[in-house]
Amino acid sequence: MLNTYQDLRRATLADVRAEIRAGRYAKHTAGLGAGYLQANLAIMREAAALDFMRYCQRNPKPCPLVGVSDTGNPMMTTLGDVDIRTDVPAYNIYRDGKLAGTATDIVDLWEDDFVAFALGCSFTFETALIDAGIPLWHIDNDTTVPMYRSGIETVPAGPFGGRMVVSMRAIDADQVDRARDIAARFPLAHGKPVHHGPPEEIGIKDVSRPDWGDPAPVPKGQVPVFWACGVTPQVALERAGLDLCITHKPGHMLITDVAEDAEVPVLGNGTPAIKTTESQTGSNP
Amino acid sequence: MLNTYQDLRRATLADVRAEIRAGRYAKHTAGLGAGYLQANLAIMREAAALDFMRYCQRNPKPCPLVGVSDTGNPMMTTLGDVDIRTDVPAYNIYRDGKLAGTATDIVDLWEDDFVAFALGCSFTFETALIDAGIPLWHIDNDTTVPMYRSGIETVPAGPFGGRMVVSMRAIDADQVDRARDIAARFPLAHGKPVHHGPPEEIGIKDVSRPDWGDPAPVPKGQVPVFWACGVTPQVALERAGLDLCITHKPGHMLITDVAEDAEVPVLGNGTPAIKTTESQTGSNP
Repeated sequence: MLNTYQDLRRATLADVRAEIRAGRYAKHTAGLGAGYLQANLAIMREAAALDFMRYCQRNPKPCPLVGVSDTGNPMMTTLGDVDIRTDVPAYNIYRDGKLAGTATDIVDLWEDDFVAFALGCSFTFETALIDAGIPLWHIDNDTTVPMYRSGIETVPAGPFGGRMVVSMRAIDADQVDRARDIAARFPLAHGKPVHHGPPEEIGIKDVSRPDWGDPAPVPKGQVPVFWACGVTPQVALERAGLDLCITHKPGHMLITDVAEDAEVPVLGNGTPAIKTTESQTGSNP
Repeated sequence: MLNTYQDLRRATLADVRAEIRAGRYAKHTAGLGAGYLQANLAIMREAAALDFMRYCQRNPKPCPLVGVSDTGNPMMTTLGDVDIRTDVPAYNIYRDGKLAGTATDIVDLWEDDFVAFALGCSFTFETALIDAGIPLWHIDNDTTVPMYRSGIETVPAGPFGGRMVVSMRAIDADQVDRARDIAARFPLAHGKPVHHGPPEEIGIKDVSRPDWGDPAPVPKGQVPVFWACGVTPQVALERAGLDLCITHKPGHMLITDVAEDAEVPVLGNGTPAIKTTESQTGSNP
């Protein structure tokens, strides 16, 4: 049995996946499957999928698309051996834009017109910052990063729109440029910050009172740095009021088979791994 | 009158756009609108759009999506002041997967269920290579880059699939790593090469006989370097045999208002430019 968080931190990705798939682990995924890309989840009917995909394309910093299922097919093969009905530890189920329940699998809810979207999350760049010696207060103190509804309008698509949610990490003033350069390497994990410095410049009235997550201090000598946040599409989905929509429970992410530092989040794509062995009898002189 | 290529090379983006929009310039766009992102074009009915968008998401190196219109709306506002019916110098019109004609505008062809897709092209990284002192033979010799149907299978989506088309540029052996690092900075312009070295390793039998474009030499001391190519989605579109599909005429690209080095290809997105000026009377102690 590997059903405690500490056991799973030492387990392989395959073992972590097996525990989650069997419904034996239903907690948060921070620090699990080290080195593999984790993702936010949004499932909706095909009727809404094109607009949602346009929303993600137009707002790639809060909504970096890393995978999209075929309609009705729960196997997200471009992300690996992923059955999206079982491979997320916990799901939120929304009906008419309101949270209507939670579940540890959605096998019985899955329908033939569902499309599943996986969107990159902040874990990837946070790991890179910590590895570079830039500490993150919310991780050292085991709290949830503070998140705010900013004044930055997203670019709408169909029923999806609204203001961008941002997360805040306080960083030493002389490390801000380095943090930005590190995060820029991970466009599928929100990329560069959208702002640093005075919160009011992006419409945040009181940085000590986040709209989601826990407050975090901004000590003298540190600068509040704001990243686009994966809660943005969640808010856009609630706002759209779809009859049915399923997301991951916050913090309870999909762990994919894609390496965290992959150039593109698609297994088997863009590499010369698949070769033809056709005749080499060309007429090259 | 600015209707010659040499005139337009010295003109502003606004003037170039005006000439193209008025139908007075219908030639290739290489070197025009310097500093602005150019894009391939694919227009299809909404019924095919979700699958095509999934195809682009799954194959971001040959199909880097930089803009998608709302259904039936020819104004691609996320790319600037762009009317997709008039702002491309020349269009190819396909019916049932076969080229059925060309046009300098598609005002009379536009329908309420059309969706337009703009995809990044190689001009951006080619300019960066040349600026870095890495010469490109096809540009110095005013020919079209050689392109090949490779053995690399793309990841299919709905009716879209097939093998990846790649373009080849011969580069000094000691400059290949640098060229790769430069191209990596432009993921929306095909990014890093997919291969360098023996062409047969990606299923190309005879590098001297390209499937599209003009042959180019690979002199001793140089290495053939292969990039994912924007002809890939064109081939996928032909293969899908849609009743109607419209693309740019090769080389006759859409010139957008987006800066070539923009982090994301969306005007007004992801920056703190849009601020709220709500009351600052929060309760921050």
